Amino acid sequence: VTTVALDAFGADRGPGEVGAGAAEALTDGVAIRLFGPAGLPAGRGVELIETEEWIDNSDEPVAAVRSRPEASIVRAARDVAGGGSQALVSAGSTGATMTAALFAFKRIRGVQRPGLAVLVPVPGAGGKPVLLLDCGANAEARPQHLVQFAFLGSAFSEAVLGVSRPRVGLLSVGEEASKGRPEVIAAHEVLAGAPGIRFEGNAEGRDIVSGDFDVVVTDGFTGNVALKTLEGTAKAVAGAVREAATSNPMAMAGGLLLRPALGRLRRTLDPNATGGAILLGVRGVAVVAHGSSTAAGIAAAVRLADRAVRERAIERMEEALAGSGAGRAALRERARESAEPDTQAG
Amino acid sequence: VTTVALDAFGADRGPGEVGAGAAEALTDGVAIRLFGPAGLPAGRGVELIETEEWIDNSDEPVAAVRSRPEASIVRAARDVAGGGSQALVSAGSTGATMTAALFAFKRIRGVQRPGLAVLVPVPGAGGKPVLLLDCGANAEARPQHLVQFAFLGSAFSEAVLGVSRPRVGLLSVGEEASKGRPEVIAAHEVLAGAPGIRFEGNAEGRDIVSGDFDVVVTDGFTGNVALKTLEGTAKAVAGAVREAATSNPMAMAGGLLLRPALGRLRRTLDPNATGGAILLGVRGVAVVAHGSSTAAGIAAAVRLADRAVRERAIERMEEALAGSGAGRAALRERARESAEPDTQAG
Repeated sequence: VTTVALDAFGADRGPGEVGAGAAEALTDGVAIRLFGPAGLPAGRGVELIETEEWIDNSDEPVAAVRSRPEASIVRAARDVAGGGSQALVSAGSTGATMTAALFAFKRIRGVQRPGLAVLVPVPGAGGKPVLLLDCGANAEARPQHLVQFAFLGSAFSEAVLGVSRPRVGLLSVGEEASKGRPEVIAAHEVLAGAPGIRFEGNAEGRDIVSGDFDVVVTDGFTGNVALKTLEGTAKAVAGAVREAATSNPMAMAGGLLLRPALGRLRRTLDPNATGGAILLGVRGVAVVAHGSSTAAGIAAAVRLADRAVRERAIERMEEALAGSGAGRAALRERARESAEPDTQAG
Repeated sequence: VTTVALDAFGADRGPGEVGAGAAEALTDGVAIRLFGPAGLPAGRGVELIETEEWIDNSDEPVAAVRSRPEASIVRAARDVAGGGSQALVSAGSTGATMTAALFAFKRIRGVQRPGLAVLVPVPGAGGKPVLLLDCGANAEARPQHLVQFAFLGSAFSEAVLGVSRPRVGLLSVGEEASKGRPEVIAAHEVLAGAPGIRFEGNAEGRDIVSGDFDVVVTDGFTGNVALKTLEGTAKAVAGAVREAATSNPMAMAGGLLLRPALGRLRRTLDPNATGGAILLGVRGVAVVAHGSSTAAGIAAAVRLADRAVRERAIERMEEALAGSGAGRAALRERARESAEPDTQAG
């Protein structure tokens, strides 16, 4: 049984919804330590650790995590580091969750910057989610960060998502190795010669949902913009379809007949369904659920964390990074150039 | 009557389709000088200037434009600069078209980097297209480039798209002024205090299609990724709806009833419909139609170019830039820092 430290604070729908998510996740044989306010239901499989302090989106993450050791997310992260639980889940501030996890878990050996990976639902039959990273842990990336994201994402995809030899793409503005920002061109060169990874070259924006890649790697600024563009567009198009289906009586009849089939599509595209984002590069499992998560979304996030623990995701990422001669060489070579700044919350 | 220099080479569907587009555009009272191979239909309103040389996507744009003065796009751009026509349209290599236009037209006074602006169709009723720039003229942007894009885009939106006091957003990873890459934060600061522009703060990826902004400004790398992500997602969701509508007999019946309403949505989302991309910051009108343009797409691009000429878009962008004290001051202040490199084709 995996014990998950679940932060009940900070979710848009409040601690009650997170508590309901905890109860829903239990059916999968997970134990939960819930860090939240008094009064949340506990009992069979859910232990409530009463917490009165929390960090929200308006707080500056690094300062808040440093100065508020009793905040729910900080206590939950410490609980994992101390062995009281094996994975951290929160639907609160992404920045605070990343910072608390980074401080409590430390980085995997050799990793300079952890990256936030999001499982992006891909519409259409047989569409497996694509792992997109970094989606906002860092506003900028050096070539070696992009190379590390590629190895971390590939190992995670294989370990937790069950993809055999994941196809890794580097997000850019054209297929040619010469296209893109200087750091992208440099990372392409390293990845093209790296053993232990199936690098399929540059991916363009449209390739995030093309099904041609299992892992798409980019910096946190571009990844965040791409992810939100994708979510916004999917929502806008779905909304326009709904609008079209009420535009006249004939269309309304059609919409009614189509509803069950479209409902399946809507569930595929629901960002809740994939369990949210996961911080890769730290020595522990940390999952950030959508802020707007329903109980089902929280449960999905807990399940994702549980799967990462059971599949030994951290160990396998450590092995992938350590085993990649090319990755290591590139890192060493470039470590000299870079005085390393703090991880920025995006 | 506006005379448009139209490059017949480089389009995915070949010169014949471009010729058909020329004929279709004529109904709007435009004259066309068509730079293409012998045998294309000419006559009433279309003058064929026979050209045997061309530049395609595999050519390095700057080198090709410099070394092939007789290539169709180079001759067409020269024709505009020489006064034989008033606007340039091509469905060929974006890089070659931008380079030929930049060399032949020169930059608007004070502009350091021209930007490629795309009219992004927004789904849903009343969705006006949003102007997104830069979509790939430059892989990177300094703060002053982003500020200039904001003024160029705002003036173009007002002049050519008829938007009164366009709402301008700066693409970033959060609403707060402190979020994003350093150059975005710096540009935000300048724009927040700039007169002559309606700056509404940061826009996130989802805001490109939210309808809350008329102009969204970013660097060419992020803009290109966002645009292609948006196009890819719209296509994938529309495809999944189509798939859902054939998944069983009931859904098929529904799909048939919905078809007319969905057809209107498809036409709204068709990248052909808006006329493509326009290069802002050069002293002439240059429109890049989608490479896959049909005759209708070519005609839309010609109409966009015609509208830009009739509405004096260039003069109005010049006025907007010259009139913006804050913009000018920021430019001067930063001009010292930056030795200016060549424009890169993205």
